[in-house]
Amino acid sequence: MGKTLAQKILQAHTEEEIKSFGQIVQVQVDKVLANDITAPLAIESFNKMGAKEVFDTEKIILVCDHFTPNKDIKSAEQVKKVREFAKRQGIVHYYEGGNVGVEHALLPELGLVGPWEIIVGADSHTCTYGALGAFATGLGSTDIAYAMAFGETWFKVPESILVKVEGKLPLFVTGKDIVLFLIGKIGVDGALYKALEFTGNAIANLDIEQRMTIANMAIEAGGKAGIFAADDKTLAYTQKAGRKDRVLSLDEDAEYVQRIEFRAEDLQPVVACPHLPENVRNVDELKNVKIDQVVLGSCTNGRITDLRQAAEIIKGHKVAKGVRFIVLPATPLIYKQALKEGLLEIFLEAGAVIGPPTCGPCLGGHMGILAGGERCLATTNRNFKGRMGSLESEVYLASPYVAAASAVTGCITNPQEIKGETDAI
Amino acid sequence: MGKTLAQKILQAHTEEEIKSFGQIVQVQVDKVLANDITAPLAIESFNKMGAKEVFDTEKIILVCDHFTPNKDIKSAEQVKKVREFAKRQGIVHYYEGGNVGVEHALLPELGLVGPWEIIVGADSHTCTYGALGAFATGLGSTDIAYAMAFGETWFKVPESILVKVEGKLPLFVTGKDIVLFLIGKIGVDGALYKALEFTGNAIANLDIEQRMTIANMAIEAGGKAGIFAADDKTLAYTQKAGRKDRVLSLDEDAEYVQRIEFRAEDLQPVVACPHLPENVRNVDELKNVKIDQVVLGSCTNGRITDLRQAAEIIKGHKVAKGVRFIVLPATPLIYKQALKEGLLEIFLEAGAVIGPPTCGPCLGGHMGILAGGERCLATTNRNFKGRMGSLESEVYLASPYVAAASAVTGCITNPQEIKGETDAI
Repeated sequence: MGKTLAQKILQAHTEEEIKSFGQIVQVQVDKVLANDITAPLAIESFNKMGAKEVFDTEKIILVCDHFTPNKDIKSAEQVKKVREFAKRQGIVHYYEGGNVGVEHALLPELGLVGPWEIIVGADSHTCTYGALGAFATGLGSTDIAYAMAFGETWFKVPESILVKVEGKLPLFVTGKDIVLFLIGKIGVDGALYKALEFTGNAIANLDIEQRMTIANMAIEAGGKAGIFAADDKTLAYTQKAGRKDRVLSLDEDAEYVQRIEFRAEDLQPVVACPHLPENVRNVDELKNVKIDQVVLGSCTNGRITDLRQAAEIIKGHKVAKGVRFIVLPATPLIYKQALKEGLLEIFLEAGAVIGPPTCGPCLGGHMGILAGGERCLATTNRNFKGRMGSLESEVYLASPYVAAASAVTGCITNPQEIKGETDAI
Repeated sequence: MGKTLAQKILQAHTEEEIKSFGQIVQVQVDKVLANDITAPLAIESFNKMGAKEVFDTEKIILVCDHFTPNKDIKSAEQVKKVREFAKRQGIVHYYEGGNVGVEHALLPELGLVGPWEIIVGADSHTCTYGALGAFATGLGSTDIAYAMAFGETWFKVPESILVKVEGKLPLFVTGKDIVLFLIGKIGVDGALYKALEFTGNAIANLDIEQRMTIANMAIEAGGKAGIFAADDKTLAYTQKAGRKDRVLSLDEDAEYVQRIEFRAEDLQPVVACPHLPENVRNVDELKNVKIDQVVLGSCTNGRITDLRQAAEIIKGHKVAKGVRFIVLPATPLIYKQALKEGLLEIFLEAGAVIGPPTCGPCLGGHMGILAGGERCLATTNRNFKGRMGSLESEVYLASPYVAAASAVTGCITNPQEIKGETDAI
């Protein structure tokens, strides 16, 4: 019998033999991540525990991406605290200003994460790196402080759920739709403290960026991790980022606690309605829902593939009157690439606002906060009550295709409708 | 004997005969302006005074540019208030989202302001439009509410100071240096309730955008207005924006309360040191002043000419390690133009952060706020204590040339030093 991906990766990081699910194991970690919100808390704990030095100056990664460019004095002071800690400790991977990208888009791009690694981050969407075959998960700031000091942490070996998707995705159906469909099916606690592991030829055919979108939202089903095998695509991706990795394969005969299978052909563009990511409906059921704002970006869908998808739909169209369409390329490299490919021009001509790489409005930080009664369709990952601003506002989650189509009409819209129009011209 | 520009314009807007300085006159206004910070206050006064309708739906201009894209719930609610008022009143010139630019860059570009007009705005830098030969000035929100309701306001006819600049500006000396030099000479109350009126062949040779930089900062010398004659350049500019205007000429033999003359050749790039715009020093005196941040943008210097100047210096260089270089093109049109000309690419390659059109950090709003002990060199207009963030932070004011040069070295730097280097390569 094979092992789950979670078992394989955890086993590679401990001398203890992993015998059962639920077993507590102490593991070495490969990277420890924190951002401008969580690093100050972790630093405080680090100091309180009497730690003097980080375990490895090349394995701590600090990214000031949430409230930057500094939105107020408080956030400026937070960043200053992180900057000074990084300087004092000689931390190599400190990102601020022109180097900053949304952490979970930045790290893969820079080759700082890859297959077989354990990455812990003081951010719930650390699970994104599972797309590359890592065991990556969010921890609290105190646990991160410990990991920063000692280079290790403990885990209860999670059970895994196998998610198998076979077949060919219909036009305009993306990784985002796969993961929203899954969350809609199993609910926001459907994978509580479990690892979601993905397989099937529809998954194998997905590019790495769309796999990241899926892994990113594992936490929205309560998952401890969302992991993909590391195949040739993965190795090509990490090699481009300057790494040399080895394959991590998925054993379908491993002891999966649950097996979920669906056909790609059966999927449609979907939308998660307020106020939970599990409130998933087909886009066509929401036709008359008017929106005030569209956000394209975040660690979920702010990569170049996402911008290309949105641009494909909005090209030659205008943002609907009264709608703010905010585009946030997730990293400086993505921003430059989008500029070179003419995507930024397409967005500007449509009437979008292009912001710098930042988490921004996703978590109600800045750069597009909602007033009471306002409704936003976003490519982000959470639509909890008040997530993007007022408690009386609403967030709908969808793919870049749906986001762009909805920006054009001012209502939640199937991209097919816009694209059909364009093609008819 | 001729009349001052202020007298001429005010006289054109009242039936009363203007006989003396200090005389109170009731005048018709051409445009009434407010933004996302001041419009909500003006709207409240408007309602309190029992006003039902604005005097002219085409003459009120509402621009949500200060805390947008909405930085928090409060700013989102402010914008919502303005949006709803604009909708209810049928206000034609309402700007938000993808249409928004920094108000004082946006209005001239859209042809909404021009020679011979009186423009009142609930923003102190409304004086910018004086560059086009308008009498333009900031009023409190209550006065703006009255003007919105009745289309008129009162002024005490101001005395005028003639500022005459003759000769040829040295390389890298700009309109910003002229106005900072002037403020350094006369102080922040040197023109208190007076109109500054500009003439001389160095002024005539300035392009309209650099004239705007000068008019914009009239208020920093306490001026009620800063006015330029409307010459062929002015008329060409407003014609391009879709207007047909007539010349407004300056009479040097008018009754000027003070005459200030200097030679353009004598000027150097200058910097206003904390915490007043009058603390002006030559850039070379500040060589060793280290900086943490550079801001290029604002109603003072966020126009295409400003971006071109900065790009000329920074092209092929990198932003100094540890410095955040924040570039904020002032309007969507400027943003698009900068993209087309390759300026955005130059800034990105240098390591700058490019933000959307917003007043942002200039007034400590968002998008680059300073922590205690941090120092910023900015192309903005005010360096009062705490203006850009912490009370313990410092702001230095300079031209786009000096800003770009300083971003490269991380210290306040004469552009000649960088450009000399580049040319030597």
